[in-house]
Amino acid sequence: MIDLRPVGYVIGLLVAVLGSTMLIPLAVDLWTGNDNWFVFLEGAILTVLTGALLAMSSVSGMSGRLTLQQTFLMTTGVWLVLPIFGALPFYIGGPEMRAVDAFFEAMSGLTTTGSTVIVGLDDMQPGVLVWRSMLQWFGGVGIIVVAMVFLPELRVGGMQIFRSESFDTGGKVLPRAAQIAARIIVIYVGLTAVCHVCYVLVGMSPFDAFNHAMTTVATGGFSTTDASFGAFPGAAEIVATVFMILASLPFVRYVQILAGQPGAILHDSQVRAFLVTFVIIVVMLVAFNLVANGASFGIALRQVLFNGASILTGTGYASTDYQLWGAFPVTVFFLIGLIGGCAGSTCCSIKVFRFQLLFASVRAQLQRIHSPHGVFTPHYEGRRVSDDVLSSVMAFFLMFVVSLGVLAVALSMTGLDFVTSISGAATALANIGPGLGDTIGPAGSFAPLNDTAKWLLSAAMLIGRLELLAVYALLTVSFWRG
Amino acid sequence: MIDLRPVGYVIGLLVAVLGSTMLIPLAVDLWTGNDNWFVFLEGAILTVLTGALLAMSSVSGMSGRLTLQQTFLMTTGVWLVLPIFGALPFYIGGPEMRAVDAFFEAMSGLTTTGSTVIVGLDDMQPGVLVWRSMLQWFGGVGIIVVAMVFLPELRVGGMQIFRSESFDTGGKVLPRAAQIAARIIVIYVGLTAVCHVCYVLVGMSPFDAFNHAMTTVATGGFSTTDASFGAFPGAAEIVATVFMILASLPFVRYVQILAGQPGAILHDSQVRAFLVTFVIIVVMLVAFNLVANGASFGIALRQVLFNGASILTGTGYASTDYQLWGAFPVTVFFLIGLIGGCAGSTCCSIKVFRFQLLFASVRAQLQRIHSPHGVFTPHYEGRRVSDDVLSSVMAFFLMFVVSLGVLAVALSMTGLDFVTSISGAATALANIGPGLGDTIGPAGSFAPLNDTAKWLLSAAMLIGRLELLAVYALLTVSFWRG
Repeated sequence: MIDLRPVGYVIGLLVAVLGSTMLIPLAVDLWTGNDNWFVFLEGAILTVLTGALLAMSSVSGMSGRLTLQQTFLMTTGVWLVLPIFGALPFYIGGPEMRAVDAFFEAMSGLTTTGSTVIVGLDDMQPGVLVWRSMLQWFGGVGIIVVAMVFLPELRVGGMQIFRSESFDTGGKVLPRAAQIAARIIVIYVGLTAVCHVCYVLVGMSPFDAFNHAMTTVATGGFSTTDASFGAFPGAAEIVATVFMILASLPFVRYVQILAGQPGAILHDSQVRAFLVTFVIIVVMLVAFNLVANGASFGIALRQVLFNGASILTGTGYASTDYQLWGAFPVTVFFLIGLIGGCAGSTCCSIKVFRFQLLFASVRAQLQRIHSPHGVFTPHYEGRRVSDDVLSSVMAFFLMFVVSLGVLAVALSMTGLDFVTSISGAATALANIGPGLGDTIGPAGSFAPLNDTAKWLLSAAMLIGRLELLAVYALLTVSFWRG
Repeated sequence: MIDLRPVGYVIGLLVAVLGSTMLIPLAVDLWTGNDNWFVFLEGAILTVLTGALLAMSSVSGMSGRLTLQQTFLMTTGVWLVLPIFGALPFYIGGPEMRAVDAFFEAMSGLTTTGSTVIVGLDDMQPGVLVWRSMLQWFGGVGIIVVAMVFLPELRVGGMQIFRSESFDTGGKVLPRAAQIAARIIVIYVGLTAVCHVCYVLVGMSPFDAFNHAMTTVATGGFSTTDASFGAFPGAAEIVATVFMILASLPFVRYVQILAGQPGAILHDSQVRAFLVTFVIIVVMLVAFNLVANGASFGIALRQVLFNGASILTGTGYASTDYQLWGAFPVTVFFLIGLIGGCAGSTCCSIKVFRFQLLFASVRAQLQRIHSPHGVFTPHYEGRRVSDDVLSSVMAFFLMFVVSLGVLAVALSMTGLDFVTSISGAATALANIGPGLGDTIGPAGSFAPLNDTAKWLLSAAMLIGRLELLAVYALLTVSFWRG
């Protein structure tokens, strides 16, 4: 039997912290003279009390050292429980959402997906808008810590390759998490603040800038208006592009820059591969828009930079319905969402380093099949890649593709059409935001979907955000046997 | 420098044999009093002469033992050169096709894909219809031999796992090929003959039965009428279902049955996994058609059995436009085409044994991540799977998914819509036949596509048929360096 008390303790603490942050949207609603502040007071009291009770009732089992089983349960547990409490303000007041919609919105927030079931953002109470942005912002920093501390420890999806890069605290995972989190938060807050200032400088209102700074740095994609970036001046798209890309790089490199090693970020092959991928996508799409659509170079470049970065990084903002550009951009946008950014950033999806590892393995395989007596081992960053890492990455890739297929079939079973099913499955699993088609496309909304589809997509966001195997490991019998 | 003479010798011989078989459609056209027989005479003379010249000019290099490089070149070379000569009758007479269409049709035939660019099959000269069916029939038996002899030897896509099952002739690949081919051809001819008799018994004309028997056993999918199986009695669908399934099982098991080991086929885990997959698909789709479409059980069962088997095995016949059943069947049909049949059959696509190996690896991986000190190795058929096989299967799977994505992007660049691009890429790479949507769906045709798209799809059929890596290996610099 697994001792659940340390898990309950951590989750309880985080729930209480989440509840206390509801005072911020409360203050915003009070400041703007909005009646809805009461909802956040209720939510805060309920959440803080529940979290505190859970933490206190579990405290006796705390030793600072978690077993592997406990770490797995904690990781998934946090991302399952926090959205329930994050959904409270949507459910008990304000937008008066039904339970399924409130949970979907909170899960989409905390997983930094950015799909929304709200139509009518422009008339929404400011507190609700701030709360949505905050959920993404917390989700973003949370996932960086998980990706740097927990996933390498859990050896999930090849993340163990980043083990040596983190900070050694003698196997005690929680103190290490605290240490890393402290440094990451400084950078994360700094990046958000600079992003905020830039948005204000290009003409956004301080309120919109505050919200979008949080959802940009989290590569989340929630906006304060139904038109997303279509409502703001073009220069805002440039700012967003820069910060979406910055948020897609490994945050450990920023720690190194602060520690006086500015070169580290450029020597990271993951960073270079990601930037090269982005440039290739931009060149292809700009060329297409010039030739096929007769667009002007300046506008085409800005729109492609913004929407390309938005989908590649899984942020999910839109400034225009790129489905109108033609079939080629639609296919490109569908597929680049499955690439994603760098590990250790706020990005999700398959991620650049996995493609690098898989291609390195294919290359070694191709050399081996026509020179069977040679010894060819895949390398990454100049070091030999262990079989353990490779089969871990392979397991991730297979399960990603299979999950995509199974989810698409399940969504189509609820009545969604083929394009909505397959792109909905992709956008949820890869935590992107918009799908394709008239319903969930960049100009649409997830609101009209049926409830079953919304639950399925919520589950997929959680599974995708935790690199699949961290969740799937819980579903095996042998896990519970210990 | 690689000695190309043995490669030229084998290809020349096969070209000459292909040319001589053009006498069969010639005889059919003569018998039916059709003017088009002359085309096959021209084609036969041209093809036999070219083949013979090529073989004779290369004969001096023949030693019975091929290097790995030569085997690679031969495998791809055969499937590149034969379609050129197979396309001759379509080009010089009869349907008066343009070069791109003739090549597409012949490639679709020899790779047993079954996509067609011909509209108006019902009015086509019988010789042309027979030639199309024969191309698929040759392609079917050819690929069994390749899958049993050459691909395990080349250690492509994990096929080396079937090495021990074949017949040992001391590393001399060509004598072994001849020996295996002889036994396979007996079974293949027998299966075709029984299929022919069954088709006649359920009411097909002997001519239609002859053609469909060849394209059924080859899991090819060419028909003699635009309506495909919509033109024949329902009982013909049952016959087709049985023989499509039989043709999707490993032919080495039939050799064993003839050798007095009838139990071998049932103990093959690949066979069991394939049949279980088929049953699950049938149950799901029949239930859906009963509940959502109010279909009668008998008709629903027959249509689902036939169309499900047709897509899962990559045959590609249609008896009805299953896109009208709803979004769920469409999504299912799109995805099951990516499963395919058993290795060593006429089926293509990713194949059941690869999914078995990949899932076995994921299972071992999941056990390892929560019990890091345990030793977990994936097993297949009770034996430990080597890392070489696993990384080979992984390389195949990755390259399949990546090729699918790149091809879809390329097709959309030529102007095809999203659904046509993505389903066209899948149907060509997995050698299925129909795609999705109005153009290339089960009720459509590949005729309206642009020429670039047709060339791309032809290339994809070749690449998919040879398990990708047999072709991609030729594209590496180190291959040509030796």
